Amino acid sequence: MIGYQGEPGAYSEEALRQAFGARAEARPFADFAGVFAAVQRGRIEAGMIPIENSLAGSVHQNYDLLRKHEVWIERELKLRVRHNLLAPKGATLKTIRRVLSHPQALSQCARFLAKQRKIELVPYFDTAGAARYVAQTGDPSLAAVASSRAAENYGLLALARGIEDDEANFTRFLVIRKLTARRKAQPGAKKSRAPMKTSLVFSLRNAPGAMHKGLAVFALRDIDLYKIESRPLPGSPWQYLFYLDVAGAYADEPVHRAVEHLKEISTYLKVLGSYPRID
Amino acid sequence: MIGYQGEPGAYSEEALRQAFGARAEARPFADFAGVFAAVQRGRIEAGMIPIENSLAGSVHQNYDLLRKHEVWIERELKLRVRHNLLAPKGATLKTIRRVLSHPQALSQCARFLAKQRKIELVPYFDTAGAARYVAQTGDPSLAAVASSRAAENYGLLALARGIEDDEANFTRFLVIRKLTARRKAQPGAKKSRAPMKTSLVFSLRNAPGAMHKGLAVFALRDIDLYKIESRPLPGSPWQYLFYLDVAGAYADEPVHRAVEHLKEISTYLKVLGSYPRID
Repeated sequence: MIGYQGEPGAYSEEALRQAFGARAEARPFADFAGVFAAVQRGRIEAGMIPIENSLAGSVHQNYDLLRKHEVWIERELKLRVRHNLLAPKGATLKTIRRVLSHPQALSQCARFLAKQRKIELVPYFDTAGAARYVAQTGDPSLAAVASSRAAENYGLLALARGIEDDEANFTRFLVIRKLTARRKAQPGAKKSRAPMKTSLVFSLRNAPGAMHKGLAVFALRDIDLYKIESRPLPGSPWQYLFYLDVAGAYADEPVHRAVEHLKEISTYLKVLGSYPRID
Repeated sequence: MIGYQGEPGAYSEEALRQAFGARAEARPFADFAGVFAAVQRGRIEAGMIPIENSLAGSVHQNYDLLRKHEVWIERELKLRVRHNLLAPKGATLKTIRRVLSHPQALSQCARFLAKQRKIELVPYFDTAGAARYVAQTGDPSLAAVASSRAAENYGLLALARGIEDDEANFTRFLVIRKLTARRKAQPGAKKSRAPMKTSLVFSLRNAPGAMHKGLAVFALRDIDLYKIESRPLPGSPWQYLFYLDVAGAYADEPVHRAVEHLKEISTYLKVLGSYPRID
């Protein structure tokens, strides 16, 4: 059983089926924390978690949850996000007066929606949840912005497909699994021929140039940096935790040594996983 | 006239009154983009914008908006966020069945709310909006989590005050003004005796060690780094813009030179403002 956040038809479910196949047993959770807790307790085999959208940016809550839970990242995958305007049978573009969806999805379709006359945009907590609500009412003046899977699930018509402004709309997902003692000792896969990446989180002493020194452990070893993300350090206002994605497997000697070097100057460090990089 | 996002009684309005006085003319906007656009067009004198909460992290949308608009940061201020449980007259802790607020406010009061029996948490798009809704219904089974200013505004009772889990709950706000040609040539105040900070945004060529070199321009000049934030670079999936807060006034020679040095290696750079640092 694989967990995801949202209602059936959510983009996370689509990612899950892409990774584990159409027949995989998928279990929806009300929130991300629920998915992490179930993976940590071994109640589900794995979780499918969005970490970053190419337009909206990182899902910061999931960075915090990765740090707080005994889980590790097994793999990443990228999903092209295609939004659709979904409505009950009998509706046409002219009957629609209110469009419901997650505010991010509404804003990603701003150009298409601005062209429609006399419609009101209604923020909703979930794209698939909006589709379910629209289907339940059967009201031809309502539409939802959601995935084509949501259309199938809830028996809605797609009045328009691919209505996102920007085609470069991708979400990067992570597959998380329970962190075992063995995995903790050796995070990530063995040395691999596929290009690998390693994710870690650390905090630094609050001293001038600390961040520069932190990145130097990788730069001095010619290790490329893919991503840097900062999050508040709980209990210490205006101090930060840094999340890095660096090139290479944790089992590669330069990466392993760079992490050991970083430990010398950091007040906290956790390796989150080491996995094949999807370009 | 000073603009802010939200309904009267929002924490942004509280920050605005702290900065500009109780009698300042405050104008609410439905979204942050509206505040930025009104400042840029000179329709309002200034805007009050939350940029970071010590528990929840950065307001990423406002980083994007700072970059896209012809505005500059005049000053920063920090507001202690105190949440209260507000209900219509006649309500007591025992009559409450549903608590409405912004999901972030609900999660910041998780401990208090978990102690209450048989209540359901209902996400709402705005703390002050939730208070207004609760006041309109007059229903003694409903409560909102919002500021004490919202209680006064909408005539609600505070059933409990200061219900946030963590007292280290601060939001950092920025005052933004229209970017004039003169200000563009010389961002920020003149050299000041007060400790200053300078905010900028830049992107780098996608090359190994680029980030390390970008930070080196400050480290080599012993300029302290207060904050680093990354956001997606529009149109280039998995490339980033970096937002930095560094120590010192832009008019200080080392800071000015470091920025000129950074321009040599960046593909884009904009100074967002230079202003006294509030500790």
